[in-house]
Amino acid sequence: MHTMTALLCQIELEKYIRKMHSIVGNAVTEGRYLVFGIGSSQLLNAAVYALSSENSSTPSNVLASIPFYPMYKAQTMFFNSENFQFEGDTNSWQSNNSTNNMDVVEFVTSPNNPDGELKTPVLGGKTIYDHAYFWPHFTPIPVPSDHDLMIFTLSKLTGHAGTRFGWAVIKDKDVYQKVLNYISVADLGISKDTQLRVLKLLKKAVEGDGKPIFEFAYNKMRDRWERLSSVFSKSTRFSIQQRHPLHCNFFNETRLPSPGTFISLVEC
Amino acid sequence: MHTMTALLCQIELEKYIRKMHSIVGNAVTEGRYLVFGIGSSQLLNAAVYALSSENSSTPSNVLASIPFYPMYKAQTMFFNSENFQFEGDTNSWQSNNSTNNMDVVEFVTSPNNPDGELKTPVLGGKTIYDHAYFWPHFTPIPVPSDHDLMIFTLSKLTGHAGTRFGWAVIKDKDVYQKVLNYISVADLGISKDTQLRVLKLLKKAVEGDGKPIFEFAYNKMRDRWERLSSVFSKSTRFSIQQRHPLHCNFFNETRLPSPGTFISLVEC
Repeated sequence: MHTMTALLCQIELEKYIRKMHSIVGNAVTEGRYLVFGIGSSQLLNAAVYALSSENSSTPSNVLASIPFYPMYKAQTMFFNSENFQFEGDTNSWQSNNSTNNMDVVEFVTSPNNPDGELKTPVLGGKTIYDHAYFWPHFTPIPVPSDHDLMIFTLSKLTGHAGTRFGWAVIKDKDVYQKVLNYISVADLGISKDTQLRVLKLLKKAVEGDGKPIFEFAYNKMRDRWERLSSVFSKSTRFSIQQRHPLHCNFFNETRLPSPGTFISLVEC
Repeated sequence: MHTMTALLCQIELEKYIRKMHSIVGNAVTEGRYLVFGIGSSQLLNAAVYALSSENSSTPSNVLASIPFYPMYKAQTMFFNSENFQFEGDTNSWQSNNSTNNMDVVEFVTSPNNPDGELKTPVLGGKTIYDHAYFWPHFTPIPVPSDHDLMIFTLSKLTGHAGTRFGWAVIKDKDVYQKVLNYISVADLGISKDTQLRVLKLLKKAVEGDGKPIFEFAYNKMRDRWERLSSVFSKSTRFSIQQRHPLHCNFFNETRLPSPGTFISLVEC
């Protein structure tokens, strides 16, 4: 693909991502920077590097609230950088942190997998919002998210996990350039073939202002949740959590999330 | 894409990569493991992690011989891992290394960019063979490469740099699993759409036992080298290196490399 065609594809893709967020009302993207990544996976680690202290003598502390996505720990441990260290659960760390050390990078998964809760930060340091599941087939969308660093992925939007495509929405220019630098150093950018494919998918997904795809997927998720609930209701050993109804701005009515169905969408 | 289709695509793609190496005679792949990566870029860093000491109190020393691809240094510095450190040029390090420290990971770029030399290791420690340019349109292929860890990329084979696809050929099962683990932790694998595209390209490239594509590309490279030489021959300030003719097993005749044309193929 010629460089100019590739650039045009990238600009067009950015436009459709912003359009999707605007239709759904789940994130503010005006005046924000976008970075593409290999799924959200790569962006999670890129964000940790971007938010950690580079020249500090002590590494930044990376944390998340239990129960959290195991990838946060796996990546942070694996890369074993001098810039950061994984410190585990926010709540137990907070109660042991007598020195009030605030060189912190906190993962906030909202909604959380597997419990579906719209989590908020515990520590108040630098924060990575993992919004993989913040789409109206999984959860009510009460208000557009407007945080410094938010990560989304195609895999939980349309189910194309194998396409390995995610994006970060970033407020600060310096953080944006650091995330971009990570992608460039790690693998010189995102496959142009993949970008073309994602563009095609998003063009389809925004049709009818997103109503057809999200209605279809919401019903699928709800049906699965109901089947799951009915199985567990017969058990005396297991129970499942209460769900909280919220007003969804996208569907313009009060709805319940379908948390237990998160994984199954992408595996079918 | 369904999991089964994706797996079949991966198996098929491996088959065509092995077939390409067998036709060209540039690498032994029988009984070797293959790992796909986001271009060779990602595999370079994956290989550094795989070959470095994980539990050592001192980091492994990563080196390359000048002139080397700047990415080696950029990646090793950027990830700033406790497992390794970039120590620069092999020759100056060797003369200062009085303690005979052999915890070494050496990049051997063969043929080298930009000088086209078929480099060999200087230090004799663990070695990453960067064979990006080891194809018969750039260099004579005197013998199939049969090293522990060899890295190739589609970008210098067919010119599709934007597709971001590379592969490593690995002898040792433990090293193979470490490289695979890197890819998995870094971004959960390679885009299936990209793999499908590469499969289509390789199916085309192996037609006529590779003769059409490599004849075409060899002539292009040679013409560019001749134009370049003719420009520099008029200069009293610059000279360009002598080239060494070698027998190329693929073309079955003695040929010269076209080193200065390496970059331009992928940029056109």
